[in-house]
Amino acid sequence: MQLGMIGLGRMGGNIVRRLMNNGHHAVVYDKDPAAVAALAGHGAVGASSLEDLVAKLDKPRAVWVMLPAGPITETTIETLHKLLDPDDVVIDGGNTFWQDDIRRAKALRERQIHYVDVGTSGGVWGIDRGYCMMIGGDKKVVDRLDPIFATLSPGIGDIPRTPGRDGRDARVEQGYMHTGPVGAGHFVKMIHNGIEYGLMQAYAEGFDILKNANGAALPSEHRFDLDIADIAEVWRRGSVIPSWLLDLTASALADNHTLDNYSGFVEDSGEGRWTINAAIDEAVPAEVLTAALFARFRSRQEHTFSEKILSAMRAGFGGHKEPQQHPDPVRQSGPKILKPEAERS
Amino acid sequence: MQLGMIGLGRMGGNIVRRLMNNGHHAVVYDKDPAAVAALAGHGAVGASSLEDLVAKLDKPRAVWVMLPAGPITETTIETLHKLLDPDDVVIDGGNTFWQDDIRRAKALRERQIHYVDVGTSGGVWGIDRGYCMMIGGDKKVVDRLDPIFATLSPGIGDIPRTPGRDGRDARVEQGYMHTGPVGAGHFVKMIHNGIEYGLMQAYAEGFDILKNANGAALPSEHRFDLDIADIAEVWRRGSVIPSWLLDLTASALADNHTLDNYSGFVEDSGEGRWTINAAIDEAVPAEVLTAALFARFRSRQEHTFSEKILSAMRAGFGGHKEPQQHPDPVRQSGPKILKPEAERS
Amino acid sequence: MQLGMIGLGRMGGNIVRRLMNNGHHAVVYDKDPAAVAALAGHGAVGASSLEDLVAKLDKPRAVWVMLPAGPITETTIETLHKLLDPDDVVIDGGNTFWQDDIRRAKALRERQIHYVDVGTSGGVWGIDRGYCMMIGGDKKVVDRLDPIFATLSPGIGDIPRTPGRDGRDARVEQGYMHTGPVGAGHFVKMIHNGIEYGLMQAYAEGFDILKNANGAALPSEHRFDLDIADIAEVWRRGSVIPSWLLDLTASALADNHTLDNYSGFVEDSGEGRWTINAAIDEAVPAEVLTAALFARFRSRQEHTFSEKILSAMRAGFGGHKEPQQHPDPVRQSGPKILKPEAERS
Amino acid sequence: MQLGMIGLGRMGGNIVRRLMNNGHHAVVYDKDPAAVAALAGHGAVGASSLEDLVAKLDKPRAVWVMLPAGPITETTIETLHKLLDPDDVVIDGGNTFWQDDIRRAKALRERQIHYVDVGTSGGVWGIDRGYCMMIGGDKKVVDRLDPIFATLSPGIGDIPRTPGRDGRDARVEQGYMHTGPVGAGHFVKMIHNGIEYGLMQAYAEGFDILKNANGAALPSEHRFDLDIADIAEVWRRGSVIPSWLLDLTASALADNHTLDNYSGFVEDSGEGRWTINAAIDEAVPAEVLTAALFARFRSRQEHTFSEKILSAMRAGFGGHKEPQQHPDPVRQSGPKILKPEAERS
Repeated sequence: MQLGMIGLGRMGGNIVRRLMNNGHHAVVYDKDPAAVAALAGHGAVGASSLEDLVAKLDKPRAVWVMLPAGPITETTIETLHKLLDPDDVVIDGGNTFWQDDIRRAKALRERQIHYVDVGTSGGVWGIDRGYCMMIGGDKKVVDRLDPIFATLSPGIGDIPRTPGRDGRDARVEQGYMHTGPVGAGHFVKMIHNGIEYGLMQAYAEGFDILKNANGAALPSEHRFDLDIADIAEVWRRGSVIPSWLLDLTASALADNHTLDNYSGFVEDSGEGRWTINAAIDEAVPAEVLTAALFARFRSRQEHTFSEKILSAMRAGFGGHKEPQQHPDPVRQSGPKILKPEAERS
Repeated sequence: MQLGMIGLGRMGGNIVRRLMNNGHHAVVYDKDPAAVAALAGHGAVGASSLEDLVAKLDKPRAVWVMLPAGPITETTIETLHKLLDPDDVVIDGGNTFWQDDIRRAKALRERQIHYVDVGTSGGVWGIDRGYCMMIGGDKKVVDRLDPIFATLSPGIGDIPRTPGRDGRDARVEQGYMHTGPVGAGHFVKMIHNGIEYGLMQAYAEGFDILKNANGAALPSEHRFDLDIADIAEVWRRGSVIPSWLLDLTASALADNHTLDNYSGFVEDSGEGRWTINAAIDEAVPAEVLTAALFARFRSRQEHTFSEKILSAMRAGFGGHKEPQQHPDPVRQSGPKILKPEAERS
Repeated sequence: MQLGMIGLGRMGGNIVRRLMNNGHHAVVYDKDPAAVAALAGHGAVGASSLEDLVAKLDKPRAVWVMLPAGPITETTIETLHKLLDPDDVVIDGGNTFWQDDIRRAKALRERQIHYVDVGTSGGVWGIDRGYCMMIGGDKKVVDRLDPIFATLSPGIGDIPRTPGRDGRDARVEQGYMHTGPVGAGHFVKMIHNGIEYGLMQAYAEGFDILKNANGAALPSEHRFDLDIADIAEVWRRGSVIPSWLLDLTASALADNHTLDNYSGFVEDSGEGRWTINAAIDEAVPAEVLTAALFARFRSRQEHTFSEKILSAMRAGFGGHKEPQQHPDPVRQSGPKILKPEAERS
Repeated sequence: MQLGMIGLGRMGGNIVRRLMNNGHHAVVYDKDPAAVAALAGHGAVGASSLEDLVAKLDKPRAVWVMLPAGPITETTIETLHKLLDPDDVVIDGGNTFWQDDIRRAKALRERQIHYVDVGTSGGVWGIDRGYCMMIGGDKKVVDRLDPIFATLSPGIGDIPRTPGRDGRDARVEQGYMHTGPVGAGHFVKMIHNGIEYGLMQAYAEGFDILKNANGAALPSEHRFDLDIADIAEVWRRGSVIPSWLLDLTASALADNHTLDNYSGFVEDSGEGRWTINAAIDEAVPAEVLTAALFARFRSRQEHTFSEKILSAMRAGFGGHKEPQQHPDPVRQSGPKILKPEAERS
């Protein structure tokens, strides 16, 4: 079938390619004309503006927006609100906050325009392997788009079937799912990413303990000088904890076992935060997912104000009111330890 | 080669079978004569006691102890200490605390008996798929046992190679690794299990948030009634977070999506605890692994004393000193909520 | 000066009493006529409705709303919006979410009505000891109300002055503070309550460890049978950790050292949740405050779904697909342990 | 009565002074002769060696060791083991690990020498205010030392009595307590310090959120520029959360509200670690106390290896295997943010 695509970055461009490789048609737009031209060279119909894209699509139109979540997606959908006609569909495939989906769908509904939110996982390999999609929207509209989703999905491949699934929705085993009404797609994708944070942090802490098993503060008979690149590799083979995340770790460590080519400055995207907000709204304890988020917050600061408050209290214990430059000589040294400020230069 | 096996439970028995299926020879002992007889029927030499087992093995002997970690392993190895001869090897394949390995090896060394600790992962499928093994001990001794480990390991199979490993120890890609001196095998296995706790808890919290997305305390327009069995399934296919642990979850949910066939009473084994102890000894922050452990502790109590302290303080806020039966009418309801005691009967 | 008070519960009633005891005048309203009559008997002017209250106040009016945060406060202020005149002031002394303050103040500003938010701490003892107040609003309006705040505040009393405060705002040492524009009062009160959660949980966990120091799973030579009522008391005297929260704990434990008169079912109010939301919005790690909140969430459930997911995974490890009633025989027992379901009946 | 004191640092010296000021007698030793001379000038009997100290004490002797926990305390007590006679008492007033107490007492008991462990709180103000003491040992021996403890304790002072304590041990209200057999004193002091970590971290996180309430990443209408020095002060007066720890914070902030005179490099002592070990041994969840400890671990590193693992995985998501210098442009900025390494010059 025909799809309009707005945003031809790595995700949007590959989605279009995978669709065209499998017989679908695409009208494409990006603010960068070169990106449009590149896909036009592969058989897509290029558009020079949102208006042009809308004009070139057959009704009822299906327009997939694949842009960074936030203001640019917001204004693009506001524009589509004005350009589209009743029964057209806007698909937001980005990492939008699910409550924004609900708000937007309500606004679009006033003009009988449909809205579908697609949480899309798969990254740069999606063009070959397909995308895992979590889809929110009205059933009828989602069903109308099924040829698109069926093509983009990875398919059952060589992943073994789960026992006991006979009689359940077969599309799920192809790697895509209609998870519920508008917002439910991005809600489920949000939790997917929240879990991902927790998984990553679990591996990271484990490797940190391995790495520091040779610390000078340990009794010498209890120290181990471990080859963590090999450990990551051996765990890929027959252990309980293999995963793609472990594969990535093994690959990075094989390349450089100190990882000193990485800053350790770790960004977070909205999904991790929204996951915790959802947990709080639901009164569900989510210690691990929260700790994973806070570890990233912490990674981006030299020292928290919180730590300075602790230092200040500790200086106060001594009965001195005067400022102290180095309140804390380290009695028990740990890994790659910072020196107190006074000793640092 | 020839191996003596003590302990013919699911792990020990399957290890012997996998070895014999591949041309090795085994002398086996278990306190349960039926277990010995069963393996004897498959070609093993049965032993009626530790003494008998030692007598039936060729020197230098290799004796694998596959018993529950703790007193029974301890006394078995103490007995072997007396029975074995210089240059024999004791292999502890259980989930022993790595500092016990170091202590034992030191004692055995007085009689020139070797000690090798093998952290063994793979569970009941190991007989077919092989075991991931993390091995601690002297290099010469570990090398002597290589035919055993090579047979027990899963082999490279169809798991893709990690780029950049050329020139590194090839055995690691077979799924077994000499991780260091005595204790290093169980140390690495311990961290493996610690990570596993964290991974499990990350998935569990995510599904808990999904499950409670339909809570009555949420605004009605923000509620989702999600099919979490299908969500577990769709995440197995093309997402970022597939793993065997997710497979198990998908399978359990396909079977019973409420999981009301499970108590939610979650045991912990020593490895999770020792992992945190190691983190503390190394001064490595390990929030996620610790939270995963504490969630299990909490799961086994009706109420912590900690919670009663909170209730008592809160009652005190009211200015009353008298005991209160139900200090806390629930203003914000959460999932499957307990009623305060006074209302419970 | 004159103040209108809406809501004559424990807080509102005592505030009026403390004001009248110190020469101020009050016009009071409550939906319960008996509460109005009681204060009228002490010299307040009773009002039979919001309209009546507004009519009986001198302009520019000052109306303090002391009602539970949420719908009732919202509708009361909406009504005042219609009844009041320009330059009148609405004071919200409840536990309102600070973003609601900002929204309401904006709406009231359209009619030149002022809004002041007062985070009020002090509980039932406030009538005698005074209230710690954190006040948000325009400086001119807050200053106009200063006689009220000065009377309600605890005053400097016998609490030692902090060195280095000379030249700083003296009102702060009286126990009240203009913390910033509208919303800043409740924002600061929110963090106060968030900290309170963390403090309570720190004590609670400490006493839990003391209580369980005699556990059967511990080596007998490492067990202590501690008198925690006496420990709470001794810590009140010369240690580093005395506080009113510890006083409450000591009192509760002196009354009943098992605390079996408390359910351990712990409510949370909005402030604890909003504190974490604020931390997340600011990208500030707040592990302790979050853990304190989650402990309360957990206390209100028999088992989390998260725990059932863990049980299900663990059952899956065994290679069985069938449901298990009691996957987890307890190897290491802990405090007051639940039995697995199968053993519980 | 007469006491021998070994270690005349701030704690040991002040304990001796408080005892002598109240009519007790002291024989004192320190490796620093000047410290001995200083106290001799105040009426103590100086000793030039452990042997000399033992010789100058009347039998049965009471010798208080007030040295840093660890090797120096250990060797001192080993020496006393040889020098002392049956029925003498060794008192360890330092921050010794309680299991070391148990081990040492067992060794000393072979020579009928008693051992008492005293967890001592009070810091540099103890000379005036007295010390809160948690005492482990045999009842008869602890009772023999009662005159010492009674003098060192703060006494009931002006701290209100806890209701319901009539008939309970009156010494507890003086600020000292016989908590149980050997080890129980330091065990209870350990938990005291563990709680202290949690309390400190709760305050610290709260102030961190206040400090960052003006962050550039927040919507402008939701920002507050708060005077946290004044907030610390106002909370001291009539709120729910005053404490000495808050006093210290208020004092430090009055002095320098940015706290840029502190490094934020926060030491931990053994008690915080041992508290968590105890919680794990007892299977008691202790999220808050653990998070407080881990925050200190984290404060002493520039980046954890854990964070580099996260960075490496994230770089892997992009499909690139090459090392990346700055994988993570910051989308959502937080407080005082580090720049990724590549941008740091």
